[in-house]
Amino acid sequence: MGYFPDKVKIVNIGLPHFAKDMKEAGIEVWHVDWKPPAGGDEEVLSLLEELERETGKIAAANAEALERILAAEPRLVGMGLAGEVVPGLSGRTILHAGPPIDWDSMCGPVRGAVLGAILFENWADSPEKAMQLVEEGEVKLAPCHHYGAVGPMAGILSPSMPVFIVENESFGNRAYSSLNEGLGKVLRFGAYDSEVLERLKWLRDKLYPVLRDALAAVGGLSLKSITSQALHMGDECHNRNKAATANLFKELAPAMVRTCHPAGDIARAMEFIQANEHFYLNISMAACKSIMDSAMHIPWSTVITAMARNGTEFGIRVSALGEEWFTAPAQPVRGLYFPGFGDGDANLDLGDSSITETCGIGGLAMACAPGIVKFVGGDAEEAIRFTREMYKITVGESSNYTIPALDFRGTPTGIDLLRVLEKDLLPVINTGIAHKEPGIGQIGAGIVRPPRECFVKALRAFVKKHLAWSPPHCGRTVLPNNSNQGR
Amino acid sequence: MGYFPDKVKIVNIGLPHFAKDMKEAGIEVWHVDWKPPAGGDEEVLSLLEELERETGKIAAANAEALERILAAEPRLVGMGLAGEVVPGLSGRTILHAGPPIDWDSMCGPVRGAVLGAILFENWADSPEKAMQLVEEGEVKLAPCHHYGAVGPMAGILSPSMPVFIVENESFGNRAYSSLNEGLGKVLRFGAYDSEVLERLKWLRDKLYPVLRDALAAVGGLSLKSITSQALHMGDECHNRNKAATANLFKELAPAMVRTCHPAGDIARAMEFIQANEHFYLNISMAACKSIMDSAMHIPWSTVITAMARNGTEFGIRVSALGEEWFTAPAQPVRGLYFPGFGDGDANLDLGDSSITETCGIGGLAMACAPGIVKFVGGDAEEAIRFTREMYKITVGESSNYTIPALDFRGTPTGIDLLRVLEKDLLPVINTGIAHKEPGIGQIGAGIVRPPRECFVKALRAFVKKHLAWSPPHCGRTVLPNNSNQGR
Repeated sequence: MGYFPDKVKIVNIGLPHFAKDMKEAGIEVWHVDWKPPAGGDEEVLSLLEELERETGKIAAANAEALERILAAEPRLVGMGLAGEVVPGLSGRTILHAGPPIDWDSMCGPVRGAVLGAILFENWADSPEKAMQLVEEGEVKLAPCHHYGAVGPMAGILSPSMPVFIVENESFGNRAYSSLNEGLGKVLRFGAYDSEVLERLKWLRDKLYPVLRDALAAVGGLSLKSITSQALHMGDECHNRNKAATANLFKELAPAMVRTCHPAGDIARAMEFIQANEHFYLNISMAACKSIMDSAMHIPWSTVITAMARNGTEFGIRVSALGEEWFTAPAQPVRGLYFPGFGDGDANLDLGDSSITETCGIGGLAMACAPGIVKFVGGDAEEAIRFTREMYKITVGESSNYTIPALDFRGTPTGIDLLRVLEKDLLPVINTGIAHKEPGIGQIGAGIVRPPRECFVKALRAFVKKHLAWSPPHCGRTVLPNNSNQGR
Repeated sequence: MGYFPDKVKIVNIGLPHFAKDMKEAGIEVWHVDWKPPAGGDEEVLSLLEELERETGKIAAANAEALERILAAEPRLVGMGLAGEVVPGLSGRTILHAGPPIDWDSMCGPVRGAVLGAILFENWADSPEKAMQLVEEGEVKLAPCHHYGAVGPMAGILSPSMPVFIVENESFGNRAYSSLNEGLGKVLRFGAYDSEVLERLKWLRDKLYPVLRDALAAVGGLSLKSITSQALHMGDECHNRNKAATANLFKELAPAMVRTCHPAGDIARAMEFIQANEHFYLNISMAACKSIMDSAMHIPWSTVITAMARNGTEFGIRVSALGEEWFTAPAQPVRGLYFPGFGDGDANLDLGDSSITETCGIGGLAMACAPGIVKFVGGDAEEAIRFTREMYKITVGESSNYTIPALDFRGTPTGIDLLRVLEKDLLPVINTGIAHKEPGIGQIGAGIVRPPRECFVKALRAFVKKHLAWSPPHCGRTVLPNNSNQGR
């Protein structure tokens, strides 16, 4: 008998490929899935250490944020034209998805959609003139989020477009979203030809009045109820809204019939919703926005209150840091493409729809929607794994939204900036993939994670604001109040 | 060191309580969940042994049965009044759930529903006169199954009632079912007061024409499509039909609006379906009936083609044994009661709805519907366990109906008489619990298994028919062709 026992057993910690090599060599090996705290990032580690002495304040603030999120009562209270009901939205203003961005930095689909909105508003009569208006600064571009609104993909909202009005009845704040146009050639993917503009006009002139009057007749709808039921019916209310759309439709259809609109208009309105399983998406997003806005501005809270992408950059907001965005370049989406498309065609991650994940549904509730793996790749087990993983980075669990496959455990809720960095584990987002050229539309769906850098920037700002202290960078020691550091 | 090693480790096979006792005494014990073949029933064992030499023929016949089940294309092709479209249903005939039964043996809810149907048909103008008609033999009572029909609970169908017409387009056979009346005081639970009769009239005079015309306008609906989608949306299409109802509604609503009926009638029709999450149940049942009928009469096939209960007896049919019923006393349902009700109030297992389990959905697809455990007791894990167990007694898996939680594995399909007895494992059925008094309605929901005796009787008949040989009973040796044995 030599120095080693006859049979070597190995425990591998960290990188999995060592374990794989040894297994292939016939050696018995246990793999321990371990990562160093904060991914071994010394700066982040030192910032997190600084915050340790304020753990009590942070925990209390995050408990308050969670309480507000769980107490929220999002209700679809009505509809209106954006220019008439969205506070501050007036004149030649066009809202877009994600954090602020200027025209020159916008990606193809967002630029196309901006031009489309200008044509729809009749501020110009050709794409060329529309572009000229933008380039001359005659059109104000601003994020939806700055106006209490959210929009999927390009997320374009202009004053003549009808919006859903969602009120968080517990706190009185409101959120807004446009009507979902369906798949294919649509404005939110940057298309702006006559087919797209005609549909937008039909949405405003025909669908909107029928829906508005039906909604008024039923006195609004509880979105907490519709979303929570849909989560028990295979939806995660971001990339799959089949059940939620059907339930919404069922609630509104009789009232649609009782409106005074012509039967043909009502039937076409129904056919439009019936044919679009994503119709609830925009409503789901506005509900999440109204919930997360009520958790903003809590001193010491490290809960993420928004994650949004403009197709060029990904931005996050943190409760205690209010309306400030922390941004980094948007990522490519990993997933499955529709036939005929591939990586080379894909735009980077785009849209405000990651407000759903911010609110604890979407990718975070993927265990509710194993059917979605058929569109984003993977198996049903993986859908459950994604959700289980997310409990590690959230401050709590929902009491409103529960997951049948996890025996009705609440969805992971309240993404915590500190946990994300400490565990080196980024939120998972289910999303559609847009073609990078305007107007082609959705070309696939997949999974994406935010860039880690957003979170690092937010942590620097959080420490700076709360400890009145600027942290050491890359292991160098820096004196307090050195304001050259940070983002 | 004594005769035994220091630490005793025990493997316990069979009855679990020995293991439990030892575990409580601190002894390490592995429990092996084992049962003797056929539950140790010597008669059944000897019958199964007799059939072993014909395994090839049986396997081929069951493969044929499975192939027909999977090839079936159930389509909702239209609606009509039962007396006009159900072949052979004429004159004073009333159809009921389950195997044949005479008036005196009927349970409370079925008797109440028969009286209600007579009043609805205007064959009598009081319950007393209605009962007199039945007792004088002036009303023919027959099982729905004998007319290609199925009905939940009492399952009453009389000539003036509207029915859904489902055609199995692959084989040309049709099945029929009444319209679901909703919960509470309804005919199928034996209620027959004026509220119930008025609703039946409204179903016939208002809801039926709107639905019939809408269905005709859309050219029918694929039920394979609606059911398979619903199984991905938390339904098992027996005790939970929430998604299927919403999807059906969504498909029909625009066409309902386009019919020439008054808007008020259309709106009320929609409100009725919207408020009744079981509306699809009767359609689901007719679809299953149309599928399973196409697997009848296959020589040597031991696949179960019907399971049905009249509230007094449970009956099954076996493919090779055609239309013969094998019956035994119906069982009590184990489950959860609505507040204010208990075991003493419950009727025995009732209704044709177990045609869904016969077809591989309902209880067999419980893993699709973890939400249902909230109504029948248990946890989400148990829902998956029930389905996994059922693969042991079915001849195959569905290629049409798949289970997200089991990574889209097909539902267990084609219950096999021989496997049921060999494994001593009875099919699991999700079902409502009816009050034993007529007219009170549903008082709970739960799980039930058919009486084993149905299967034993069917096995005896199968052996007798196919081997022209009557089996020994209870271990006694009996000469061939002794026809006093068996059922």
